Amino acid sequence: MGLFSKDIETLDDLFVHTLQDIYYAEHQILKALPKMIKKVSDPQLREALSEHLEQTKTHVDRLEQVFEMHGAEVKAVDCPAIDGILKEANEIVGDIADKQVLDAAIIAAAQAVEHYEITRYGTLATWAKQLGRADCAAVLVETLDEEKEADEILTDVAKGRVNAEAA
Amino acid sequence: MGLFSKDIETLDDLFVHTLQDIYYAEHQILKALPKMIKKVSDPQLREALSEHLEQTKTHVDRLEQVFEMHGAEVKAVDCPAIDGILKEANEIVGDIADKQVLDAAIIAAAQAVEHYEITRYGTLATWAKQLGRADCAAVLVETLDEEKEADEILTDVAKGRVNAEAA
Repeated sequence: MGLFSKDIETLDDLFVHTLQDIYYAEHQILKALPKMIKKVSDPQLREALSEHLEQTKTHVDRLEQVFEMHGAEVKAVDCPAIDGILKEANEIVGDIADKQVLDAAIIAAAQAVEHYEITRYGTLATWAKQLGRADCAAVLVETLDEEKEADEILTDVAKGRVNAEAA
Repeated sequence: MGLFSKDIETLDDLFVHTLQDIYYAEHQILKALPKMIKKVSDPQLREALSEHLEQTKTHVDRLEQVFEMHGAEVKAVDCPAIDGILKEANEIVGDIADKQVLDAAIIAAAQAVEHYEITRYGTLATWAKQLGRADCAAVLVETLDEEKEADEILTDVAKGRVNAEAA
Protein backbone atom coordinates (compact mmCIF):
# COMPACT_ATOMS: atom_id res chain seq x y z
CA MET A 1 0.00 0.00 0.00
CA GLY A 2 0.74 3.76 -0.13
CA LEU A 3 4.10 5.32 -0.65
CA PHE A 4 3.43 8.88 0.47
CA SER A 5 3.02 9.73 4.12
CA LYS A 6 -0.39 10.64 5.52
CA ASP A 7 -2.17 10.50 2.17
CA ILE A 8 -5.10 8.56 3.61
CA GLU A 9 -7.29 10.98 5.56
CA THR A 10 -10.75 9.41 5.66
CA LEU A 11 -12.41 6.00 5.74
CA ASP A 12 -13.39 6.71 2.14
CA ASP A 13 -9.70 7.13 1.21
CA LEU A 14 -8.90 3.89 3.03
CA PHE A 15 -11.71 2.09 1.21
CA VAL A 16 -10.49 3.26 -2.22
CA HIS A 17 -6.88 2.44 -1.33
CA THR A 18 -7.83 -1.08 -0.28
CA LEU A 19 -9.82 -1.50 -3.51
CA GLN A 20 -6.62 -0.57 -5.38
CA ASP A 21 -4.66 -3.05 -3.26
CA ILE A 22 -6.96 -5.99 -4.01
CA TYR A 23 -7.21 -4.92 -7.67
CA TYR A 24 -3.42 -5.34 -7.89
CA ALA A 25 -3.66 -8.63 -5.98
CA GLU A 26 -6.28 -10.07 -8.35
CA HIS A 27 -4.04 -9.27 -11.32
CA GLN A 28 -1.08 -11.00 -9.69
CA ILE A 29 -3.29 -14.03 -8.97
CA LEU A 30 -4.41 -14.05 -12.63
CA LYS A 31 -0.75 -14.35 -13.62
CA ALA A 32 0.17 -16.92 -10.95
CA LEU A 33 -2.75 -19.37 -11.23
CA PRO A 34 -2.03 -20.72 -14.75
CA LYS A 35 1.55 -21.55 -13.70
CA MET A 36 0.24 -23.37 -10.61
CA ILE A 37 -2.36 -25.26 -12.65
CA LYS A 38 0.37 -26.54 -15.01
CA LYS A 39 2.12 -28.22 -12.08
CA VAL A 40 -0.99 -30.02 -10.76
CA SER A 41 -1.39 -33.80 -11.20
CA ASP A 42 -4.78 -34.49 -9.60
CA PRO A 43 -7.57 -33.89 -12.17
CA GLN A 44 -10.10 -32.74 -9.55
CA LEU A 45 -7.65 -30.18 -8.20
CA ARG A 46 -6.82 -29.01 -11.73
CA GLU A 47 -10.53 -28.51 -12.42
CA ALA A 48 -11.09 -26.61 -9.15
CA LEU A 49 -8.20 -24.23 -9.84
CA SER A 50 -9.19 -23.77 -13.48
CA GLU A 51 -12.71 -22.81 -12.42
CA HIS A 52 -11.25 -20.39 -9.90
CA LEU A 53 -9.13 -18.83 -12.62
CA GLU A 54 -12.32 -18.06 -14.56
CA GLN A 55 -13.94 -16.66 -11.41
CA THR A 56 -10.90 -14.44 -10.81
CA LYS A 57 -11.51 -12.74 -14.17
CA THR A 58 -15.06 -11.96 -12.99
CA HIS A 59 -13.64 -10.61 -9.71
CA VAL A 60 -11.49 -8.13 -11.64
CA ASP A 61 -14.56 -7.01 -13.61
CA ARG A 62 -16.55 -6.59 -10.40
CA LEU A 63 -13.79 -4.47 -8.84
CA GLU A 64 -13.85 -2.19 -11.90
CA GLN A 65 -17.60 -1.95 -11.44
CA VAL A 66 -17.17 -0.93 -7.77
CA PHE A 67 -14.55 1.71 -8.68
CA GLU A 68 -17.01 3.16 -11.19
CA MET A 69 -20.04 3.00 -8.85
CA HIS A 70 -18.01 4.83 -6.23
CA GLY A 71 -16.71 7.44 -8.71
CA ALA A 72 -13.09 6.43 -8.17
CA GLU A 73 -10.37 5.94 -10.76
CA VAL A 74 -9.70 2.30 -11.68
CA LYS A 75 -6.15 1.91 -10.40
CA ALA A 76 -3.82 -0.63 -8.79
CA VAL A 77 -1.32 0.02 -5.98
CA ASP A 78 1.46 -2.32 -4.90
CA CYS A 79 0.35 -4.98 -2.45
CA PRO A 80 3.36 -6.46 -0.62
CA ALA A 81 1.09 -9.01 1.09
CA ILE A 82 0.06 -10.83 -2.10
CA ASP A 83 3.61 -10.51 -3.46
CA GLY A 84 4.87 -12.28 -0.32
CA ILE A 85 2.18 -14.95 -0.40
CA LEU A 86 2.88 -15.73 -4.09
CA LYS A 87 6.67 -15.64 -3.56
CA GLU A 88 6.27 -18.24 -0.82
CA ALA A 89 4.01 -20.32 -3.07
CA ASN A 90 6.59 -20.29 -5.89
CA GLU A 91 9.42 -21.22 -3.55
CA ILE A 92 7.61 -24.19 -2.03
CA VAL A 93 6.42 -25.45 -5.42
CA GLY A 94 10.02 -25.29 -6.67
CA ASP A 95 11.15 -27.37 -3.69
CA ILE A 96 9.07 -30.47 -4.38
CA ALA A 97 9.59 -33.23 -6.94
CA ASP A 98 6.98 -35.79 -5.77
CA LYS A 99 3.71 -35.14 -7.65
CA GLN A 100 1.33 -36.02 -4.82
CA VAL A 101 3.24 -33.95 -2.25
CA LEU A 102 3.34 -31.11 -4.77
CA ASP A 103 -0.46 -31.22 -5.12
CA ALA A 104 -0.83 -30.98 -1.33
CA ALA A 105 1.54 -27.97 -1.29
CA ILE A 106 -0.33 -26.28 -4.16
CA ILE A 107 -3.62 -26.61 -2.26
CA ALA A 108 -2.02 -25.02 0.83
CA ALA A 109 -0.58 -22.19 -1.29
CA ALA A 110 -3.91 -21.57 -3.04
CA GLN A 111 -5.72 -21.52 0.30
CA ALA A 112 -3.29 -18.88 1.63
CA VAL A 113 -4.24 -16.77 -1.41
CA GLU A 114 -7.96 -17.39 -0.81
CA HIS A 115 -7.69 -16.35 2.84
CA TYR A 116 -5.97 -13.10 1.91
CA GLU A 117 -8.82 -12.35 -0.47
CA ILE A 118 -11.46 -13.36 2.10
CA THR A 119 -10.06 -10.95 4.68
CA ARG A 120 -9.77 -8.06 2.21
CA TYR A 121 -13.21 -8.49 0.62
CA GLY A 122 -14.76 -8.93 4.08
CA THR A 123 -13.19 -5.65 5.23
CA LEU A 124 -14.15 -3.83 2.01
CA ALA A 125 -17.78 -4.96 2.22
CA THR A 126 -18.01 -3.81 5.86
CA TRP A 127 -16.47 -0.42 5.05
CA ALA A 128 -18.73 0.02 2.00
CA LYS A 129 -21.81 -0.45 4.20
CA GLN A 130 -20.38 1.97 6.77
CA LEU A 131 -19.89 4.54 4.01
CA GLY A 132 -23.54 4.17 2.95
CA ARG A 133 -22.58 2.24 -0.20
CA ALA A 134 -24.79 -0.82 0.16
CA ASP A 135 -24.66 -1.08 -3.65
CA CYS A 136 -20.85 -1.51 -3.62
CA ALA A 137 -21.08 -3.85 -0.60
CA ALA A 138 -23.47 -6.15 -2.48
CA VAL A 139 -21.01 -6.54 -5.38
CA LEU A 140 -18.09 -7.12 -2.99
CA VAL A 141 -20.05 -9.76 -1.05
CA GLU A 142 -20.70 -11.70 -4.27
CA THR A 143 -16.94 -12.09 -4.68
CA LEU A 144 -16.41 -12.73 -0.95
CA ASP A 145 -18.85 -15.64 -1.09
CA GLU A 146 -17.08 -17.11 -4.14
CA GLU A 147 -13.69 -16.86 -2.42
CA LYS A 148 -15.06 -18.66 0.64
CA GLU A 149 -16.58 -21.33 -1.58
CA ALA A 150 -13.27 -21.77 -3.46
CA ASP A 151 -11.48 -22.24 -0.13
CA GLU A 152 -14.02 -24.89 0.96
CA ILE A 153 -13.70 -26.74 -2.36
CA LEU A 154 -9.91 -26.86 -1.89
CA THR A 155 -10.37 -28.24 1.64
CA ASP A 156 -12.67 -30.94 0.26
CA VAL A 157 -10.20 -31.86 -2.49
CA ALA A 158 -7.37 -32.04 0.05
CA LYS A 159 -9.25 -34.15 2.56
CA GLY A 160 -10.93 -36.29 -0.07
CA ARG A 161 -7.89 -37.55 -1.91
CA VAL A 162 -4.80 -35.43 -2.37
CA ASN A 163 -3.45 -35.66 1.19
CA ALA A 164 -4.11 -39.41 1.38
CA GLU A 165 -2.09 -39.91 -1.80
CA ALA A 166 0.68 -37.66 -0.56
CA ALA A 167 1.00 -39.42 2.81
CA MET B 1 9.98 -21.21 2.60
CA GLY B 2 12.92 -23.35 1.43
CA LEU B 3 16.00 -22.17 -0.35
CA PHE B 4 17.35 -25.43 -1.75
CA SER B 5 15.69 -27.13 -4.67
CA LYS B 6 13.77 -30.38 -4.15
CA ASP B 7 14.54 -30.68 -0.45
CA ILE B 8 10.94 -31.56 0.39
CA GLU B 9 10.31 -35.17 -0.55
CA THR B 10 7.39 -36.35 1.58
CA LEU B 11 4.22 -34.99 3.19
CA ASP B 12 6.10 -35.31 6.48
CA ASP B 13 8.85 -33.00 5.15
CA LEU B 14 6.18 -30.55 3.98
CA PHE B 15 4.48 -30.68 7.39
CA VAL B 16 7.73 -29.93 9.25
CA HIS B 17 8.65 -27.19 6.77
CA THR B 18 5.27 -25.52 7.24
CA LEU B 19 5.67 -25.77 11.03
CA GLN B 20 9.00 -23.93 10.61
CA ASP B 21 7.27 -21.34 8.40
CA ILE B 22 4.53 -20.54 10.94
CA TYR B 23 7.07 -20.65 13.79
CA TYR B 24 8.94 -17.81 12.02
CA ALA B 25 5.62 -16.04 11.36
CA GLU B 26 4.55 -16.18 15.02
CA HIS B 27 7.86 -14.62 16.05
CA GLN B 28 7.44 -11.79 13.54
CA ILE B 29 3.90 -11.23 14.84
CA LEU B 30 5.23 -11.11 18.41
CA LYS B 31 7.53 -8.27 17.31
CA ALA B 32 4.90 -6.42 15.25
CA LEU B 33 1.90 -6.52 17.61
CA PRO B 34 3.27 -4.27 20.40
CA LYS B 35 4.08 -1.56 17.80
CA MET B 36 0.53 -1.80 16.42
CA ILE B 37 -1.01 -1.68 19.91
CA LYS B 38 0.88 1.57 20.67
CA LYS B 39 -0.87 3.26 17.72
CA VAL B 40 -4.41 2.20 18.74
CA SER B 41 -6.85 4.77 20.17
CA ASP B 42 -9.96 2.68 20.86
CA PRO B 43 -9.67 1.00 24.32
CA GLN B 44 -11.67 -2.09 23.29
CA LEU B 45 -9.40 -2.63 20.28
CA ARG B 46 -6.32 -2.13 22.43
CA GLU B 47 -7.59 -4.75 24.86
CA ALA B 48 -8.40 -7.23 22.08
CA LEU B 49 -4.93 -6.90 20.52
CA SER B 50 -3.20 -7.05 23.92
CA GLU B 51 -5.01 -10.28 24.73
CA HIS B 52 -4.02 -11.64 21.35
CA LEU B 53 -0.38 -10.77 22.06
CA GLU B 54 -0.54 -12.97 25.17
CA GLN B 55 -2.19 -15.76 23.13
CA THR B 56 0.57 -15.50 20.52
CA LYS B 57 3.17 -16.37 23.17
CA THR B 58 1.16 -19.50 23.94
CA HIS B 59 1.02 -20.31 20.21
CA VAL B 60 4.82 -20.23 20.05
CA ASP B 61 4.99 -22.60 23.05
CA ARG B 62 2.48 -24.95 21.41
CA LEU B 63 4.50 -25.02 18.18
CA GLU B 64 7.60 -26.00 20.17
CA GLN B 65 5.51 -28.74 21.76
CA VAL B 66 4.44 -30.02 18.31
CA PHE B 67 8.05 -30.00 17.02
CA GLU B 68 9.04 -32.09 20.05
CA MET B 69 6.07 -34.47 19.82
CA HIS B 70 6.95 -35.06 16.18
CA GLY B 71 10.67 -35.53 16.89
CA ALA B 72 11.65 -32.56 14.73
CA GLU B 73 14.16 -29.83 15.49
CA VAL B 74 12.61 -26.55 16.72
CA LYS B 75 13.55 -24.25 13.86
CA ALA B 76 12.29 -21.26 11.88
CA VAL B 77 12.51 -20.73 8.11
CA ASP B 78 11.88 -17.48 6.27
CA CYS B 79 8.23 -16.85 5.49
CA PRO B 80 7.87 -14.23 2.72
CA ALA B 81 4.08 -14.28 3.16
CA ILE B 82 4.06 -12.92 6.72
CA ASP B 83 6.88 -10.51 5.84
CA GLY B 84 4.71 -9.12 3.01
CA ILE B 85 1.57 -8.95 5.15
CA LEU B 86 3.42 -7.08 7.94
CA LYS B 87 5.20 -4.78 5.46
CA GLU B 88 1.82 -3.80 4.03
CA ALA B 89 0.46 -3.26 7.57
CA ASN B 90 3.36 -0.95 8.45
CA GLU B 91 3.00 1.03 5.24
CA ILE B 92 -0.72 1.65 5.67
CA VAL B 93 -0.35 2.57 9.34
CA GLY B 94 2.33 5.10 8.40
CA ASP B 95 -0.03 6.64 5.85
CA ILE B 96 -2.81 7.66 8.24
CA ALA B 97 -2.95 10.57 10.67
CA ASP B 98 -6.64 10.43 11.71
CA LYS B 99 -6.94 8.26 14.84
CA GLN B 100 -10.29 6.68 14.03
CA VAL B 101 -9.31 5.85 10.45
CA LEU B 102 -6.03 4.45 11.78
CA ASP B 103 -7.95 2.12 14.15
CA ALA B 104 -10.02 0.84 11.21
CA ALA B 105 -6.82 0.20 9.21
CA ILE B 106 -5.16 -1.57 12.16
CA ILE B 107 -8.14 -3.92 12.45
CA ALA B 108 -7.91 -4.73 8.73
CA ALA B 109 -4.16 -5.34 9.03
CA ALA B 110 -4.58 -7.58 12.09
CA GLN B 111 -7.30 -9.56 10.34
CA ALA B 112 -5.01 -10.17 7.35
CA VAL B 113 -2.48 -11.62 9.84
CA GLU B 114 -5.19 -13.75 11.50
CA HIS B 115 -6.33 -15.14 8.17
CA TYR B 116 -2.78 -16.14 7.24
CA GLU B 117 -2.52 -18.01 10.53
CA ILE B 118 -5.97 -19.59 10.10
CA THR B 119 -5.04 -21.02 6.69
CA ARG B 120 -1.65 -22.34 7.89
CA TYR B 121 -2.92 -23.92 11.13
CA GLY B 122 -5.89 -25.41 9.25
CA THR B 123 -3.52 -26.99 6.72
CA LEU B 124 -1.11 -28.20 9.43
CA ALA B 125 -3.90 -29.83 11.48
CA THR B 126 -5.22 -31.63 8.38
CA TRP B 127 -1.75 -32.87 7.42
CA ALA B 128 -1.03 -33.98 11.02
CA LYS B 129 -4.16 -36.16 10.99
CA GLN B 130 -3.20 -37.56 7.60
CA LEU B 131 0.24 -38.44 8.97
CA GLY B 132 -1.35 -40.33 11.87
CA ARG B 133 -0.44 -37.60 14.36
CA ALA B 134 -3.82 -36.92 15.97
CA ASP B 135 -1.86 -35.75 19.04
CA CYS B 136 -0.13 -32.98 17.06
CA ALA B 137 -3.40 -32.14 15.28
CA ALA B 138 -5.17 -31.62 18.63
CA VAL B 139 -2.55 -29.06 19.73
CA LEU B 140 -2.68 -27.27 16.37
CA VAL B 141 -6.49 -27.11 16.45
CA GLU B 142 -6.37 -25.39 19.86
CA THR B 143 -4.41 -22.56 18.26
CA LEU B 144 -6.56 -22.61 15.10
CA ASP B 145 -9.68 -22.07 17.21
CA GLU B 146 -8.07 -19.16 19.06
CA GLU B 147 -7.03 -17.51 15.78
CA LYS B 148 -10.58 -17.82 14.46
CA GLU B 149 -11.94 -16.37 17.68
CA ALA B 150 -9.45 -13.47 17.54
CA ASP B 151 -10.60 -12.73 13.98
CA GLU B 152 -14.25 -12.72 15.07
CA ILE B 153 -13.52 -10.41 18.02
CA LEU B 154 -11.84 -7.95 15.63
CA THR B 155 -14.88 -8.07 13.32
CA ASP B 156 -17.14 -7.31 16.30
CA VAL B 157 -14.94 -4.40 17.43
CA ALA B 158 -14.92 -2.99 13.88
CA LYS B 159 -18.66 -3.29 13.35
CA GLY B 160 -19.51 -2.23 16.90
CA ARG B 161 -17.74 1.10 17.04
CA VAL B 162 -14.47 1.69 15.24
CA ASN B 163 -15.82 1.91 11.69
CA ALA B 164 -18.73 4.14 12.75
CA GLU B 165 -16.28 6.57 14.34
CA ALA B 166 -13.98 6.46 11.32
CA ALA B 167 -16.80 7.17 8.83
